[in-house]
Amino acid sequence: MRKVAIIGAGMTPFGEHWEHGFRDLVVEAGVKAIGDAGISGDRIDAGYVGTMASGRLIGQEHIGGLIADYMGLNPTPITRVEGACASGGLALRQGLMAVASGMHDIVVVGGVEKMTDLGVNTVSDILGGAGDQEWELFLGATFPAIYALMARRHMHEYGTTEEMLASVAVKNHRHGSKNKYAQFQNEITIEKVMKSKMVADPLKVFDCSPITDGAAAVVLAPLELASSFKKKPIEIIASAQASDALALHSRQTLSGLRATQVAAKKAYEMAKLTPKDIDFAELHDCFTIAEIMAIEDLSFFPKGMGGPASLEGKTALGGEIPTNTSGGLKACGHPVGATGVKQAVEAVWQLRGEAEGRQVKDAHIGLSHNVGGSGATAVIHIYRNL
Amino acid sequence: MRKVAIIGAGMTPFGEHWEHGFRDLVVEAGVKAIGDAGISGDRIDAGYVGTMASGRLIGQEHIGGLIADYMGLNPTPITRVEGACASGGLALRQGLMAVASGMHDIVVVGGVEKMTDLGVNTVSDILGGAGDQEWELFLGATFPAIYALMARRHMHEYGTTEEMLASVAVKNHRHGSKNKYAQFQNEITIEKVMKSKMVADPLKVFDCSPITDGAAAVVLAPLELASSFKKKPIEIIASAQASDALALHSRQTLSGLRATQVAAKKAYEMAKLTPKDIDFAELHDCFTIAEIMAIEDLSFFPKGMGGPASLEGKTALGGEIPTNTSGGLKACGHPVGATGVKQAVEAVWQLRGEAEGRQVKDAHIGLSHNVGGSGATAVIHIYRNL
Repeated sequence: MRKVAIIGAGMTPFGEHWEHGFRDLVVEAGVKAIGDAGISGDRIDAGYVGTMASGRLIGQEHIGGLIADYMGLNPTPITRVEGACASGGLALRQGLMAVASGMHDIVVVGGVEKMTDLGVNTVSDILGGAGDQEWELFLGATFPAIYALMARRHMHEYGTTEEMLASVAVKNHRHGSKNKYAQFQNEITIEKVMKSKMVADPLKVFDCSPITDGAAAVVLAPLELASSFKKKPIEIIASAQASDALALHSRQTLSGLRATQVAAKKAYEMAKLTPKDIDFAELHDCFTIAEIMAIEDLSFFPKGMGGPASLEGKTALGGEIPTNTSGGLKACGHPVGATGVKQAVEAVWQLRGEAEGRQVKDAHIGLSHNVGGSGATAVIHIYRNL
Repeated sequence: MRKVAIIGAGMTPFGEHWEHGFRDLVVEAGVKAIGDAGISGDRIDAGYVGTMASGRLIGQEHIGGLIADYMGLNPTPITRVEGACASGGLALRQGLMAVASGMHDIVVVGGVEKMTDLGVNTVSDILGGAGDQEWELFLGATFPAIYALMARRHMHEYGTTEEMLASVAVKNHRHGSKNKYAQFQNEITIEKVMKSKMVADPLKVFDCSPITDGAAAVVLAPLELASSFKKKPIEIIASAQASDALALHSRQTLSGLRATQVAAKKAYEMAKLTPKDIDFAELHDCFTIAEIMAIEDLSFFPKGMGGPASLEGKTALGGEIPTNTSGGLKACGHPVGATGVKQAVEAVWQLRGEAEGRQVKDAHIGLSHNVGGSGATAVIHIYRNL
């Protein structure tokens, strides 16, 4: 397998883009990443794009063809990959395999979602398609309800408190306040979270990631060519993916994601590293409970200790293992198909020392963790600078 | 790049499956392919699935997670790939790269679509998402209209006649009559096509592929391991993909598909073969004009000679280059995400000598050609027996 590096990264601001359509967002992120790599478009051999629900959100499938067209990349092959909220991470993984296999050299990977053009109830219904539509959404279980069930179980098993959940949101807003691309750049307090409107008990509105428009992109190249480009290459040293039952009722546990646990084990093996070697991590905090489960499932903390670790600031900038320096899904925003690629963009910026006010000191190894739906897919990448 | 072979193949009957849901179809095709390979599910390292519009057709995204679950394959990673009607061919290509890269050994590739649960107008609207939704469908151009424009231009430039178009349908129904998996197993005549209801002038209802439910699957392995399995391995000796403008109005030509032409050139180079070396081909005949353009764009016949070649029987079983021995999209049916994988299944059966009444004599090299939408994506594979 050829080694693969990221040679360019870029993203749109995440937020409500009333003045930009799906096509504009894709082009902006792609052009930024290609420009960052310092190459012209004719060097691109192939592309992958993660998007979850363009068919229902904007009536458009065949997003690979659309992007080749609007990026001016024809006849370069571009392929859409979908795995709900893990679509971006899966697109990165396919791009990596395309380079690793020798089929292609320079591959651009994008993620995009345009979500704010429809009403919140419609979008909530569409997002339900990430879970088991027949057994969950059809019976009324939207995503806040599904994660609320997991939160309740985690509280029951480990004594996790609502304040611990809130501390994740507070930390991610603090990180987001240092990120000019974040949807929310305001700091919040635990009190504000606790007093915010209940969505699905125990999850309040500030425990939930928002509905967001945005796109992100990276450019991949074989490691042996990577030093010939403009910026310092960032090597991808592990890529691992795992599945679990689509519906909660078929899972072995509700207080953790087995797909994350399995993918993490594979990723650490592939990178020949342990959790202690990771300097920072971008995690899939679609809800605050999701980040607490993630830091346990990734073995940063023992099972059940994610809540206290968060409350004690161990996952904040300057702490033991800074997580979601971008602001995470909670504060940076969650355009579902873009999130997995945005995580890679943040990892690149951190590992190049370009993360400005949120820079992790001496960052050498980073990890990204992207989850589809309520955990039926998890995909993990580990990156290092050279 | 590791060489890759198909070691198992299977499909559901194509047609209107009132008694089976999306999940049942996927499982049936997958189990048949895995059984054909003579392996147990725990040998599977990863999976890919092509499906175009499950979000709008059945309200379900995250199809990779769904399939891992319903196939009993958890925690094996399964990933959905989408490129409109080329989704199946693109899934095959990703599976091939996953094996070629060394990331995975045994990979199952499926394609599926469940289309008949909604009314024809709704489905037609959903299929419009394969073209340029903003510039074509929104203004009233459904797919028959888009291909009718191409047919009119081809007739204008080359003198192609409606009888020539009709001859494609007649030939594919004749082939389909020999395929127990085909949606239509009845023979038709040119007169019947010519007298059938006009859909979009000059395309009549018998010039159009039907709306279909179905699934197909193949199992891939590294060629060096392939001889250890039950059936004779079929090597994939080329995989090529190209893009073109999403909307017709941005194309360089309307009388051929540039994406097919570019992908064909790459595929022949990769296989070190010429069009004359191909013994049979499964082509993307979503409309009769599409097959005529395909046999020209693939250089089986000079540009403009596809119509006469079809009328003269050169593409029929026993002719120069038998095309769509399965019955093609026209008679075998067109569950859009499944079609590209079904083409691979037919190639495997032909190359193993298992194609029963439609067997191509001395078949050694086969080609499959899968198109997304009106040609913004084309993906071509070439197969050989050993």
